[in-house]
Amino acid sequence: MAKIRIGIMGAGFIAGVHASVLAGDERVQLAAVYDVVPACAERLAGAYNATAVATTLELLERSDAVFITTPNTQHVSLSIASIGTGKHVFCEKPLATNVADAERVFKKASEARSVFQVGHNRRFAPVYATLKRMLSGTHAPHSAHVKMNRGELLKPEWTGDPEVTGGFLYETPIHMFDMMRFLFGEVESLHAAGSTHEYKEMDDFSVLLRFANGMHATLATAADASWLFPFERIEVFSHHATLVTREMESLTYNTGLEGNFTQQTMQQLPREEKWGYVQEDRAFIDAIVNGSEPLVTALDGLMSVRLVDAVYESVRSKAPVSVSSQL
Amino acid sequence: MAKIRIGIMGAGFIAGVHASVLAGDERVQLAAVYDVVPACAERLAGAYNATAVATTLELLERSDAVFITTPNTQHVSLSIASIGTGKHVFCEKPLATNVADAERVFKKASEARSVFQVGHNRRFAPVYATLKRMLSGTHAPHSAHVKMNRGELLKPEWTGDPEVTGGFLYETPIHMFDMMRFLFGEVESLHAAGSTHEYKEMDDFSVLLRFANGMHATLATAADASWLFPFERIEVFSHHATLVTREMESLTYNTGLEGNFTQQTMQQLPREEKWGYVQEDRAFIDAIVNGSEPLVTALDGLMSVRLVDAVYESVRSKAPVSVSSQL
Amino acid sequence: MAKIRIGIMGAGFIAGVHASVLAGDERVQLAAVYDVVPACAERLAGAYNATAVATTLELLERSDAVFITTPNTQHVSLSIASIGTGKHVFCEKPLATNVADAERVFKKASEARSVFQVGHNRRFAPVYATLKRMLSGTHAPHSAHVKMNRGELLKPEWTGDPEVTGGFLYETPIHMFDMMRFLFGEVESLHAAGSTHEYKEMDDFSVLLRFANGMHATLATAADASWLFPFERIEVFSHHATLVTREMESLTYNTGLEGNFTQQTMQQLPREEKWGYVQEDRAFIDAIVNGSEPLVTALDGLMSVRLVDAVYESVRSKAPVSVSSQL
Amino acid sequence: MAKIRIGIMGAGFIAGVHASVLAGDERVQLAAVYDVVPACAERLAGAYNATAVATTLELLERSDAVFITTPNTQHVSLSIASIGTGKHVFCEKPLATNVADAERVFKKASEARSVFQVGHNRRFAPVYATLKRMLSGTHAPHSAHVKMNRGELLKPEWTGDPEVTGGFLYETPIHMFDMMRFLFGEVESLHAAGSTHEYKEMDDFSVLLRFANGMHATLATAADASWLFPFERIEVFSHHATLVTREMESLTYNTGLEGNFTQQTMQQLPREEKWGYVQEDRAFIDAIVNGSEPLVTALDGLMSVRLVDAVYESVRSKAPVSVSSQL
Repeated sequence: MAKIRIGIMGAGFIAGVHASVLAGDERVQLAAVYDVVPACAERLAGAYNATAVATTLELLERSDAVFITTPNTQHVSLSIASIGTGKHVFCEKPLATNVADAERVFKKASEARSVFQVGHNRRFAPVYATLKRMLSGTHAPHSAHVKMNRGELLKPEWTGDPEVTGGFLYETPIHMFDMMRFLFGEVESLHAAGSTHEYKEMDDFSVLLRFANGMHATLATAADASWLFPFERIEVFSHHATLVTREMESLTYNTGLEGNFTQQTMQQLPREEKWGYVQEDRAFIDAIVNGSEPLVTALDGLMSVRLVDAVYESVRSKAPVSVSSQL
Repeated sequence: MAKIRIGIMGAGFIAGVHASVLAGDERVQLAAVYDVVPACAERLAGAYNATAVATTLELLERSDAVFITTPNTQHVSLSIASIGTGKHVFCEKPLATNVADAERVFKKASEARSVFQVGHNRRFAPVYATLKRMLSGTHAPHSAHVKMNRGELLKPEWTGDPEVTGGFLYETPIHMFDMMRFLFGEVESLHAAGSTHEYKEMDDFSVLLRFANGMHATLATAADASWLFPFERIEVFSHHATLVTREMESLTYNTGLEGNFTQQTMQQLPREEKWGYVQEDRAFIDAIVNGSEPLVTALDGLMSVRLVDAVYESVRSKAPVSVSSQL
Repeated sequence: MAKIRIGIMGAGFIAGVHASVLAGDERVQLAAVYDVVPACAERLAGAYNATAVATTLELLERSDAVFITTPNTQHVSLSIASIGTGKHVFCEKPLATNVADAERVFKKASEARSVFQVGHNRRFAPVYATLKRMLSGTHAPHSAHVKMNRGELLKPEWTGDPEVTGGFLYETPIHMFDMMRFLFGEVESLHAAGSTHEYKEMDDFSVLLRFANGMHATLATAADASWLFPFERIEVFSHHATLVTREMESLTYNTGLEGNFTQQTMQQLPREEKWGYVQEDRAFIDAIVNGSEPLVTALDGLMSVRLVDAVYESVRSKAPVSVSSQL
Repeated sequence: MAKIRIGIMGAGFIAGVHASVLAGDERVQLAAVYDVVPACAERLAGAYNATAVATTLELLERSDAVFITTPNTQHVSLSIASIGTGKHVFCEKPLATNVADAERVFKKASEARSVFQVGHNRRFAPVYATLKRMLSGTHAPHSAHVKMNRGELLKPEWTGDPEVTGGFLYETPIHMFDMMRFLFGEVESLHAAGSTHEYKEMDDFSVLLRFANGMHATLATAADASWLFPFERIEVFSHHATLVTREMESLTYNTGLEGNFTQQTMQQLPREEKWGYVQEDRAFIDAIVNGSEPLVTALDGLMSVRLVDAVYESVRSKAPVSVSSQL
């Protein structure tokens, strides 16, 4: 069987991660790389015997499936163009940086026959996959606190530029909005406060979330908190138990009425596996090969964008905001 | 100079803590102990060469100052009666278990010339006193996340009886409402979600708080979370820094853009000092001796009650609630 | 039945711990307290309605059982005198501060019909009792590393005076020598290096120990290491498992080939129970009441002294030293 | 200037690490790869546009410098052959798996004009480089405890085969013998106990070490301890201070008499830098380019082998063993 030809649009850090993972999948062949800076495309292509191409059009011609790993604000147009040529698309998160765009991509992806997967890698990270299993089993969640901080918006420099990222919440905390849906279900409404301190955009947020099933949670996220471990932590309060993740390094939980606990540690896993990159890329190729539904859909991408947008709106309006799950 | 005669109303666990602390203060003499169960009064009185008395009236006669360490729902009537006889009063938290009562005590205490202090001990705990100093210095807070969990409402049994506690939030999390005012200033409004799982009252809460000065914070508190350390934790996000307390055991903070950190540990302090009991009792006696304002006033007690009440109201109304700081 | 009258010789910190524990045992009555400083005796006696006495002779007359809680170098003469009058004796660790003395007390105690127990409290601490059970079960120890540090020999001041302590190893690390026998069996030989840095005695030691059963272990102990947690830690390496205690706060262990682990935490226990004081005092009274063998015997006290003595000898001789278990 | 042509002998895991690091150094070119399994050589060569060669002779012809990354027991013959052809040699640890061989390589390397560096990467790891600086400054070491465990000798399988590794101590703990020399100076004598449990060789060791400068230390190392974090830890006891490394993840130290501490964390560094691989390869190329002495010499390699050999001898003889630093 012919190998699936992969094209990569955008040759930055995360492109390199996907390339190295895909290099380990015998069903695919890294065919082409495009970047607005040709030298970047050449460097990545060179490392994997792929062809650096000069235009996204040329890339689409040489590919059966594309990875969109450009800056966030370019995801929409490239996704729509790629779907339009019938290619399978893996689009890095966020799906878009506003709701209208996200809905356009969702609609386009829904009508297409090709696979469309969004890069919410954490669903595949062992620490979160295990937490999900536990919450679906004997540890039904009562409430939760979620934290996702960044140390700064300086390294790399573009992380502090909303023209590139779409805004801090679209770049980093969007992972947690997807995680909350994954773990706790659909959000019904949220209420947020935000403030601006170090950067030219809001960099500290406090959020209250109500879920359709009665769950409730708080989220704290700061872009200027320094890298005090853990910067990413989900604490779920359940039936006489607390379950805590720290980064994607460990899952700790206790049961019963005492403070004893068990910790599952992922620290020995290679980073690409610990963060779920290996598993999400394999899932994408599986979906192509099997003609099956991808595990993170355009709908998931859309809903995360709606949640982020609702936070920004709630901060502006100083009022609670309903979150629609209508399509 | 004559020693200040102390009377203790309510001879349970926290009464024993205060008694043992006061036994180390040469300015006072433990004079009388009252408890609804005479044997309890006798046991505590016996250990400190005090007199077990049969009525609160007799206790007031034998005392210059009283410690009210009864169940929460009796604080109000005993406070008002004690102030009425001109005694200095140390009232354990909460000041009251509803706003109207709290306002009555506040008014009575405001009109009196005697000292009235509320038992928000954490203001005196070294971990929080140090955090306060840091936030007032170079680490102005941007936002915060606060957690205060209990493992269960079973041990002791009365902790699960709202008739005794006034409700879970009045018993344990009220400490954090006082802490937030102490550390971050007055709350302008809050929005809360709550739910009921293991007990006959709401036992899981998620809260969003806006402060008058623009700060914002989230609070998570669960009464059925098991005792996974730390059950009490304040995380403050500041200028490229995070500061975290864990119980009253340690304060960890970093500065700069890396993940390096410094931890101040209080673990070697005796528990009565680590939790601020020694310092708060000394401050109360200082205020009596010096005729000065106590460090935790009836106003502080009132405001904490207003915050707790606002949370319950917000859960009921499913809407944000303004918090008045009017007197 | 008449209560057992307890006399306490030496009214310092640890005497206060035992007094408060004994006050909770209905089978005993705190009868008399002696201290070389009468005011100390009076303070402790006063707190427990006991009589402060002027001589140890008077104390023995008023007691059925005595607690010897004086400075280490006085344990021997007081033990022998107390046994001589037929009293039950609880002697704090160390039994003696040299082997000849320890053997004299051992002989005297062996010939007596009264109970003689040595204050190696850690055998009763839940963390070590649990570890012992695990090592006796499926986790047979292969080798171990033991650490017991002090931060300094300044607080209290006498801890730095070998005239009072008999030497650093007799004061603090002797606990670990008893622990190693308790957990791993008899030591056959040991080899030690020592050095002097901050104090007028050797304050840093490294020790290799071989056990009769083939186990081997290393011990590191420093008197000038500062109080970096944990200062007391036993790590046991077993069948594809590591078991670690940290202070008497927690026991952590894993099994299998991964890094996952379970932690039992004792942090919520009251300190007197966490450190085994409650249990060891109860065991002493049980032995008196039941006429049974105490759980920590004069032989245990003697063997710990032999081990400490062997370390000092090995440092002097720069050679391995055999440790006799002959009586 | 012509690029330095690099040949890699042995295309396993660690070869891949060096290849990826060298790919980032513009002064070199990965020229040739040899492996006893041609497919392995081809895979590695293919990833870096190098040539897979059929013999080590061919590899030497195509290279200016070679990396010896074969199984331990082949290091000696390949080192000697490579030095013999005038090539610069980077030999992975251990230099050899017995003293006689190590001395032969040392002699050969000493007589050559080319660079010879041994792969004791930890000297370059930031955590250890920082510790070294602190110990050389105000934190002169008094004594130390060193631990280096493995979870098992099963993954990969060859780690349990002494024919391949030369024995467990030659494979993993040899890192710590080099570290102790690096941090504390030359070892004068040591005394070790060892035992055999899970594998066909000794898998648990306890060691006492005396250094020429009066320092002393203990070392615990087990091959069957499971992967309980941290498996690699150096604790140094200094002037009222303790300094602790955990893996190559963090360095924690306190000063003064309290338990407060500072932690430097390396967790955000890429693994190749955190473990010192990037720095050691750069240092090797620097030495070639500058004609300077490498930072880890054949002498360092020899001394580590002598220390490991002394441990095995001490276990056999059940006696202390002197360690010569004579050449």
